[in-house]
Amino acid sequence: MTAFITGTGKTKFGVLSESLSQLLQKAVDECLENAGRTINDVDAVYLANFLGGPQESQLHLNALFSSIYGFEKPALRVEAACASGAVALNQGIAALQKFDRVLVVGVEKLSGTDSKTASSSIAMAGGRILDQQNGIIFPAAYALLAQQHFLRYGSSIDDLTLISLKNHANANLNPKAHFYSKNVTREMIEQSPLVSTPLRLFDCSPISDGAAAVLLEKDAGRARARVSASQLRTDTISLIERNDLTSFKAVRQAAAAAYAEAGITPADVDLAEVHDCFTIAELVAYEDLGFASAGEGKQLVRSHATELNGALPVNTDGGLKADGHPIGATGVAQAVELTLQLSREAGKRQVDGAKTGLCHNVGGIGGTAAIQVLEAVE
Amino acid sequence: MTAFITGTGKTKFGVLSESLSQLLQKAVDECLENAGRTINDVDAVYLANFLGGPQESQLHLNALFSSIYGFEKPALRVEAACASGAVALNQGIAALQKFDRVLVVGVEKLSGTDSKTASSSIAMAGGRILDQQNGIIFPAAYALLAQQHFLRYGSSIDDLTLISLKNHANANLNPKAHFYSKNVTREMIEQSPLVSTPLRLFDCSPISDGAAAVLLEKDAGRARARVSASQLRTDTISLIERNDLTSFKAVRQAAAAAYAEAGITPADVDLAEVHDCFTIAELVAYEDLGFASAGEGKQLVRSHATELNGALPVNTDGGLKADGHPIGATGVAQAVELTLQLSREAGKRQVDGAKTGLCHNVGGIGGTAAIQVLEAVE
Repeated sequence: MTAFITGTGKTKFGVLSESLSQLLQKAVDECLENAGRTINDVDAVYLANFLGGPQESQLHLNALFSSIYGFEKPALRVEAACASGAVALNQGIAALQKFDRVLVVGVEKLSGTDSKTASSSIAMAGGRILDQQNGIIFPAAYALLAQQHFLRYGSSIDDLTLISLKNHANANLNPKAHFYSKNVTREMIEQSPLVSTPLRLFDCSPISDGAAAVLLEKDAGRARARVSASQLRTDTISLIERNDLTSFKAVRQAAAAAYAEAGITPADVDLAEVHDCFTIAELVAYEDLGFASAGEGKQLVRSHATELNGALPVNTDGGLKADGHPIGATGVAQAVELTLQLSREAGKRQVDGAKTGLCHNVGGIGGTAAIQVLEAVE
Repeated sequence: MTAFITGTGKTKFGVLSESLSQLLQKAVDECLENAGRTINDVDAVYLANFLGGPQESQLHLNALFSSIYGFEKPALRVEAACASGAVALNQGIAALQKFDRVLVVGVEKLSGTDSKTASSSIAMAGGRILDQQNGIIFPAAYALLAQQHFLRYGSSIDDLTLISLKNHANANLNPKAHFYSKNVTREMIEQSPLVSTPLRLFDCSPISDGAAAVLLEKDAGRARARVSASQLRTDTISLIERNDLTSFKAVRQAAAAAYAEAGITPADVDLAEVHDCFTIAELVAYEDLGFASAGEGKQLVRSHATELNGALPVNTDGGLKADGHPIGATGVAQAVELTLQLSREAGKRQVDGAKTGLCHNVGGIGGTAAIQVLEAVE
């Protein structure tokens, strides 16, 4: 595979006043400027968005993109629930077989409706019959996962609290994070309201607006990072249909394929962006990605290995928990963060000497898994 | 490009009792059986769907697909309004660079809500501010197009009536058509209620449920048709943003590129499936696709050239008007019809000696255009 990231753009994540179009434009403008390109240099566009229809009455985003930029070349939207961003990235990378420069942009506008409406819309990532009609919205599904993981492996709510604390600490070094400059303490997390036992408010990612973009190029000339693997796998839509409630098979399959494609092992990964829609998801990701064996993810937490100064920093931007989770943008934003880290542009949260990064984006409760491996360019 | 269609599947189109999942499964099962393949032979899946979120509270369809088939490989949904089907086809064809066999399936479930709700959802293909908030729903937008075309070129409502009559006549030879065995007369069309001047009820495609699937293969062994071109272009989301209200630039660009890619001219096309969401759209398509020069599409109608026994049969299955328009399925169903025709399996509506077919799928009011050229295999 020959794919390089030559530009990145990202809006502030949070509850924002901008419209979907404005967010999209802001991220794309920044990305093109960052790459030293104009829209005329772009051969194709892959847009990621999850809830433009239900939340904003706006579908057909490729045409909306054309209205903003006068773009007439191939453009389309992909949707794979919360993995929409990384799936668009996966498709954009593959499209470099055909095109020289492909723009990938993810965007989501979730604020502006009440949170009950947003939750109902987000539930559309689950099965209508097995999940939605039985009240298994996502906090409940991930709570089941946490309960099973705790029971089987002896992990605990304290481990999840440490993950939340870490990600909030990282977000405090990231001015674009949803919870930048919010001083979150262990007490705040422990005293926050229960959402679905054992998950408390601070175990859940927020409802965020935002957009992120990367420019992919076949030519290495302007490269700021190199893509060495891109893999996509699927699994059933509902947790109820699975045999194992403590691991995501699609993630394990995508990870194995990505490591093989990149010619590396988990031990070669210097830093990772993982899909912590709930803190338990980050713990399970450690294990599914092979950073720890099954049940041993808790040791990475307890040894502080995944903190910013640890051996394997995870979610240096704050993750979905604290950077925010504007759904369609999330998977693209992960690649933005890795690119910043690998090109030594991550400012106060820079990880020294990182050469290999992995990003991991999950749809629903593991129904989609998309993994990319990025390498530093010299 | 090396892409062959080896199997096709299509449900009955119409107001159906089946759920979105059931429709999807029915089309895919038929397609795989038709190709002599099983789901295990498929390397990747591209799903087209427009309104699963707003209408059915169901997104994340790749995972839903996995729930039905136990599919674990790459799968994703693409959305480009009413062109979703052909865009999925375009992406599936490109994916043969990487995979041996790619399944493309389009599905839509629109009935089950009142027609006002369906119309509101369909309006999401238009711009929220420029179109939706100004009441420019799709019948109104295409009515504007018709008015301008009539004024500029002297085409008339009688031409549109002939198109409607033709497509209903073709649908009467297609047992899977929404309006199969409905005897539509000129009087019925002319006396039908005005929807938006000059368009009457019988100038509008219906709100249909349905699904369609094709299996694409790199290897020619089981080929029933060969794909010789696949092109995708974009334009602004709103008609208000265009200079020319009597033609779709994205279609003209996609068509020029498709003819070049296939190494043919419009005169080489033996039959076509065109996007007649409204009868005026078929008339304009004749011109944008180069079957007639600008303003002269009416001559093809008046000379009966595009009827089943004419020189260039168009919409032999009944088109969106009478075969139906289950939105995500439509573009895929067009390729199904061409494959049946090119492989001499079209039954009572078989066009003799057809070697080259073109399908033309449009999103919104020309914001997306996707065109495929298919060739008979010997």
